[in-house]
Amino acid sequence: MLTTTVGLGDRAYPIYIGAGLIDQADLFIRRMPQKRAALVTNETVAALYLPRLQAALEGAGVSVLPIVVRDGEAFKTWETLNAIYDALLSARCERRTALIALGGGVVGDITGFAAATYLRGVPFIQVPTTLLAQVDSSVGGKTAINHPLGKNMIGAFYQPAAVIADLATLSTLPPRELSAGLAEVIKYGFLGDRDFIDWLDAHLEALLARDPTALAFAVERCCRNKADIVARDERETGDRALLNLGHTFGHAIEAALGFGRWLHGEAVGAGMVLAARTSRQLGHLDDADVARVTAMVARAGLPVTPPHLEIAQWLDLMGHDKKVEGGRLRFVLLKSLGQAYVDAAVPRPVLEEVLAGAAVDG
Amino acid sequence: MLTTTVGLGDRAYPIYIGAGLIDQADLFIRRMPQKRAALVTNETVAALYLPRLQAALEGAGVSVLPIVVRDGEAFKTWETLNAIYDALLSARCERRTALIALGGGVVGDITGFAAATYLRGVPFIQVPTTLLAQVDSSVGGKTAINHPLGKNMIGAFYQPAAVIADLATLSTLPPRELSAGLAEVIKYGFLGDRDFIDWLDAHLEALLARDPTALAFAVERCCRNKADIVARDERETGDRALLNLGHTFGHAIEAALGFGRWLHGEAVGAGMVLAARTSRQLGHLDDADVARVTAMVARAGLPVTPPHLEIAQWLDLMGHDKKVEGGRLRFVLLKSLGQAYVDAAVPRPVLEEVLAGAAVDG
Repeated sequence: MLTTTVGLGDRAYPIYIGAGLIDQADLFIRRMPQKRAALVTNETVAALYLPRLQAALEGAGVSVLPIVVRDGEAFKTWETLNAIYDALLSARCERRTALIALGGGVVGDITGFAAATYLRGVPFIQVPTTLLAQVDSSVGGKTAINHPLGKNMIGAFYQPAAVIADLATLSTLPPRELSAGLAEVIKYGFLGDRDFIDWLDAHLEALLARDPTALAFAVERCCRNKADIVARDERETGDRALLNLGHTFGHAIEAALGFGRWLHGEAVGAGMVLAARTSRQLGHLDDADVARVTAMVARAGLPVTPPHLEIAQWLDLMGHDKKVEGGRLRFVLLKSLGQAYVDAAVPRPVLEEVLAGAAVDG
Repeated sequence: MLTTTVGLGDRAYPIYIGAGLIDQADLFIRRMPQKRAALVTNETVAALYLPRLQAALEGAGVSVLPIVVRDGEAFKTWETLNAIYDALLSARCERRTALIALGGGVVGDITGFAAATYLRGVPFIQVPTTLLAQVDSSVGGKTAINHPLGKNMIGAFYQPAAVIADLATLSTLPPRELSAGLAEVIKYGFLGDRDFIDWLDAHLEALLARDPTALAFAVERCCRNKADIVARDERETGDRALLNLGHTFGHAIEAALGFGRWLHGEAVGAGMVLAARTSRQLGHLDDADVARVTAMVARAGLPVTPPHLEIAQWLDLMGHDKKVEGGRLRFVLLKSLGQAYVDAAVPRPVLEEVLAGAAVDG
């Protein structure tokens, strides 16, 4: 088992990475103030892992309330959140009762937001079961639900007490979800880790084949990168925004098509290609750089071309981005491969050119 | 103008207390990162003060988005919160756009929760216009909405950037609301400020007559008491629970009757009498002490007798209290007048005796 720590003073917490961790109840109990937990998961993950985790916890004397929500980004809504609150209140869960999120990014985000707001905050443990959640969304304390007008518009910064990433759960991940997770993995390379880009060039096929050593390396590397950034800038007043490489474009794609049509990672994949092209138009990247980003995204099994949207729709949807400041769009772009920056002055004609060409020359 | 500070390190903030403060735009602007604000109020307060505050801010170059919600505790719900989110998103309010709450406890609580969760947190300014909000709910960062199963069940700890209490707004407060505010004023005396109990004995009629000097003294005294407690225990792991004197009983009354039938302060008034009686049954107070509490509540124009509820309903509703721990009810009771404590071991027969007698011998 590998352990990385997110250094946030008295709110610091461990990320445990290894195979078979959901059977190790002691990892959970040491971070719980009370031997009682509500275990939130979705119907798909419940069928695979709920009985095992529940049995491990109950075997260690923990009283467990399972709460099963529907599967998919389309259900990261008020309605699902309210169903979680209703279950917690009906069972009289208390301020010291932990909420455990067993699942992917949707389950983690919505359970985290429930934990942040139920009785004004209860302990929270992330048990990510998708690659995307293990390398990205379970770490760092961003919790949220979607609003019809935009992705993750309602939420809170609320750190978990622990992240327990069981690599063995990746064996049951559908191929499409694996690829979606690789979008975030690749992101860490291009935004700030040149050596990792080279490693990915050599190991992408091993990751796609679910080679355990490669997966363990990638999950740990991404978690460490993210933990460092979050420790420096928990509330995204600076560097943390770089983690949104590809996301301004990506969130617009998700909102335009309806949440859940494209997986988040798919939208981020296409979004990274758009960010690379924008960076080329601004003179930072050359054609070979853009080709390298595009090829990596394609090799991961991800779309490199966004769906067709009108320019006006792109701009309207991106105008709801959380990074907008003083009415100005702020994009995460690349100075070079492995060096991201925030650009608040992308000229409109550049954007229009990139977006107009997006759906055809991809 | 009096100024008190809530000492919370880099999140410290001022409480400004004085007459005519809503005309002083500079008090607002110095705490706003952007000359843009969404101003949330209810239909009653909007008719009285919205144009004035809006004019003051706009006169100072601030762009203002007014958001008017319905008046009353019954509207401290998801539905109202969603209406606020919709308005913020439609107007493309950003992370640096401030939310200003102009109104009483309901407006403050729901606007604060919106500020805590919109885009994962935006700046927030409290402008309390009721006595209850000025002395209690606007200070300390507790934000919430109600759930059918319990008061303030969903919320967040989220501190404002400033509290601006304009004493002149109390001139338009209906008498019933003034009395409700006095419940929280009286609470500060009995929970921990003996001198203030004596002052109240001498000045309660002056407060009821809205004597400006008396009101200014009481608001400042309560805010200072609260600021001290919040600075010591922001997240209610200790002393802050004492601020809930009368509230475990009171919240049960509010939930049982339907939110809004009794005002929060009315329920707290009757709840303090029940807390005093429970304290007497446990041998801490004598009959004269209970009579003093009861008389003060009555003089303030508040009910001293709760509505009739079955014992089972009392216990069921109080079982949803946020202070419940390990299934045990925890009551804020009185060791003596001016000295509250938390009691997690009130024997059931004592409770039953107090509650059975409650509605008849009050």
